[in-house]
Amino acid sequence: MKIGIADTTFSRVDMFPYAEATLKKLDKRIQIERYTVPGIKDLPVACKRLFDFYGCDIVMALGMAGKMPIDKQCTHESSTAIQQVQLMTNKHILEVFVHMDEASDDKNLDIITKNRTTKHAENAYALLLGKNSLSGYAGMGRRQGREDAGPAVVSGKGNKISKNKKSKIEKSKNAKRR
Amino acid sequence: MKIGIADTTFSRVDMFPYAEATLKKLDKRIQIERYTVPGIKDLPVACKRLFDFYGCDIVMALGMAGKMPIDKQCTHESSTAIQQVQLMTNKHILEVFVHMDEASDDKNLDIITKNRTTKHAENAYALLLGKNSLSGYAGMGRRQGREDAGPAVVSGKGNKISKNKKSKIEKSKNAKRR
Amino acid sequence: MKIGIADTTFSRVDMFPYAEATLKKLDKRIQIERYTVPGIKDLPVACKRLFDFYGCDIVMALGMAGKMPIDKQCTHESSTAIQQVQLMTNKHILEVFVHMDEASDDKNLDIITKNRTTKHAENAYALLLGKNSLSGYAGMGRRQGREDAGPAVVSGKGNKISKNKKSKIEKSKNAKRR
Amino acid sequence: MKIGIADTTFSRVDMFPYAEATLKKLDKRIQIERYTVPGIKDLPVACKRLFDFYGCDIVMALGMAGKMPIDKQCTHESSTAIQQVQLMTNKHILEVFVHMDEASDDKNLDIITKNRTTKHAENAYALLLGKNSLSGYAGMGRRQGREDAGPAVVSGKGNKISKNKKSKIEKSKNAKRR
Amino acid sequence: MKIGIADTTFSRVDMFPYAEATLKKLDKRIQIERYTVPGIKDLPVACKRLFDFYGCDIVMALGMAGKMPIDKQCTHESSTAIQQVQLMTNKHILEVFVHMDEASDDKNLDIITKNRTTKHAENAYALLLGKNSLSGYAGMGRRQGREDAGPAVVSGKGNKISKNKKSKIEKSKNAKRR
Repeated sequence: MKIGIADTTFSRVDMFPYAEATLKKLDKRIQIERYTVPGIKDLPVACKRLFDFYGCDIVMALGMAGKMPIDKQCTHESSTAIQQVQLMTNKHILEVFVHMDEASDDKNLDIITKNRTTKHAENAYALLLGKNSLSGYAGMGRRQGREDAGPAVVSGKGNKISKNKKSKIEKSKNAKRR
Repeated sequence: MKIGIADTTFSRVDMFPYAEATLKKLDKRIQIERYTVPGIKDLPVACKRLFDFYGCDIVMALGMAGKMPIDKQCTHESSTAIQQVQLMTNKHILEVFVHMDEASDDKNLDIITKNRTTKHAENAYALLLGKNSLSGYAGMGRRQGREDAGPAVVSGKGNKISKNKKSKIEKSKNAKRR
Repeated sequence: MKIGIADTTFSRVDMFPYAEATLKKLDKRIQIERYTVPGIKDLPVACKRLFDFYGCDIVMALGMAGKMPIDKQCTHESSTAIQQVQLMTNKHILEVFVHMDEASDDKNLDIITKNRTTKHAENAYALLLGKNSLSGYAGMGRRQGREDAGPAVVSGKGNKISKNKKSKIEKSKNAKRR
Repeated sequence: MKIGIADTTFSRVDMFPYAEATLKKLDKRIQIERYTVPGIKDLPVACKRLFDFYGCDIVMALGMAGKMPIDKQCTHESSTAIQQVQLMTNKHILEVFVHMDEASDDKNLDIITKNRTTKHAENAYALLLGKNSLSGYAGMGRRQGREDAGPAVVSGKGNKISKNKKSKIEKSKNAKRR
Repeated sequence: MKIGIADTTFSRVDMFPYAEATLKKLDKRIQIERYTVPGIKDLPVACKRLFDFYGCDIVMALGMAGKMPIDKQCTHESSTAIQQVQLMTNKHILEVFVHMDEASDDKNLDIITKNRTTKHAENAYALLLGKNSLSGYAGMGRRQGREDAGPAVVSGKGNKISKNKKSKIEKSKNAKRR
């Protein structure tokens, strides 16, 4: 199992160690390939190269975006190309983008970034295990970078939630996933 | 007949059971392949994989979007890639996206989501049956997630509506399709 | 000569009969393949399938869009994909999209829709005849869905308009093309 | 040397003669293939067909856009696809788009259109001659459709402008390029 | 090592000499191929041609954008296509775009342009050397066209910054990279 991690020098937080630590904790056998580029728009081809030249099975794209409208445009262009890479390679890329205007200050920026990177590292690992490893959490309002929103209705009509699932929801709501 | 269903852990409603129940009611022979991903931007490659690796004939992409401008951007990126998957595979993907700001509260969110998912499951089945199975309803202002708008003019000049069609319109207007 | 026509159940006007009537009047030999989908975002792959599986030489994509900002986004996504289909197949698709906010009321919506559909059916036929069959009308401010705008200057310096052309302009301006 | 010119019936100025006259003046040997379509969104596939079926070496896409927000969206969709055609064919397309809100009145619309079309015809010819035929004008603030902006600094530190170049700038500024 | 540089006649600053000087200083063996086009939207296919016909290993796309909303749209279209070229060729393109509204006056425009072009020339060279040559600077808030922002937190919890790294940060903050 080889996971690619692409990151940037533009980012104000070093996101790679957060991803690496989580992945290593999840499974000792995971190999990691790192690829560092200047900014968010250099990530898509780095991801593609991690698949094509370094044999990665899944990639995490770690990026940070500024506060200006032009920065939103840049993330849009990067995201669009990251979608294309996925379709060209038939492989998942976990896009871990943090917008600087999400944070109240520098410390908060680090907290959001760590939370999002960590949770998406877990998602990357889950997707590698198979297409149904996240199915138990479908519809449960999971969030990365902040607390989970949780499900809108715990027990709908056509949508009976089993006891097993309910306990998962409680766990999800109370436990503040790492 | 194999129908793929891709869903997300971000969604606050478990959409899969609504789709599954509808499809099973329509035709016992339908096989379903489920694929769960973190969020709306992970759906396109999941759809592609459902076609390429799991032999699906049609796919439903079930997703939910937040209320912020950045969330609209995310659905746009996802939708653009879902279009590409359809062109690459020559197969239909029914995009069932619910925007959280469509709903007045959590219960309403569940109602909208159920309505849209159910109706699009019917559409998916109709498209599988052939390119003209929906032709009888063309121009009739059908909606998913809310009541049908109905046709603008029941009997236009160049557009004579047969008695048969008129009765369909009445049925459509009165019956509040599932 | 086979012309594909893709239409939707979302539309509040049955656009297909307007296109069909015009094409049949223009040339008895035209064969028509119809493909009905739920909404505007299902049109691109339907168009592609009309080319790839039904041997169409040109396609008309008939769609209607709602009044909300999200509807503009949907038409944008559909249009972008319709562009891609054209480039993948090297064939023209006449996009006949009507926005509900163009019309003052339901009757007006039908009038605009009929006008646009009819004129674009004529355009589809002209494009099938050859790349220069519309050249006589180049720069003449033609519009679909409303009256022609006409040319900005009837006789420019470097742009001498022949008598033959002038009479076409008059005809175009006075005759209120169907 | 074969140059394709795609134009529209939507345009309120007949742009083709302006391009043709300029190209014929530049080089008698240039062959021109014309392709007329209804509107700006029909141009991309016309350009592609000019390359694929008519053997053009370069193409000019002549279009005009209305004043409404939806018109900006249309030019965006057309431009995006014109980019794709260039990448699919490895050939240049000179996009000559005029926005109706650029002009104060109809006469001014014709003047802007002529200026932009003429200058881009010159650019098309230059690009055909080689990748460095415009290098002497790099950074000189050239504009099409209006007067050149000129360079920001005539003599920067790291950017010494030779006498030869300076005279070109003067010529460029004074001569009001055709 | 061959580096392609695409530039424009639209730009008000001659950006090529800034890139060339930096690259030549970094490594005498670097060969440069220049390609000049009219404007920002002509850059993507020029970049593709620099890869396909001139054997470049990496390309810098030097462009300048006007102050109007339509100019933002043009850069968006160009950037989207530049992303595609990278994915088609599996090679990096350093996008060096300057927006005229970034600068207070013409002299400032030249300063920003020089700074951004120079730093991205260094980035291009680093990327050529390997996927980890920039890893030591990941998360350090590097900027091109202005001073570096620096890292948000020098010593996070899960993100221990080594002494070696700290000194790099100081250097980065104090030294005002060229």
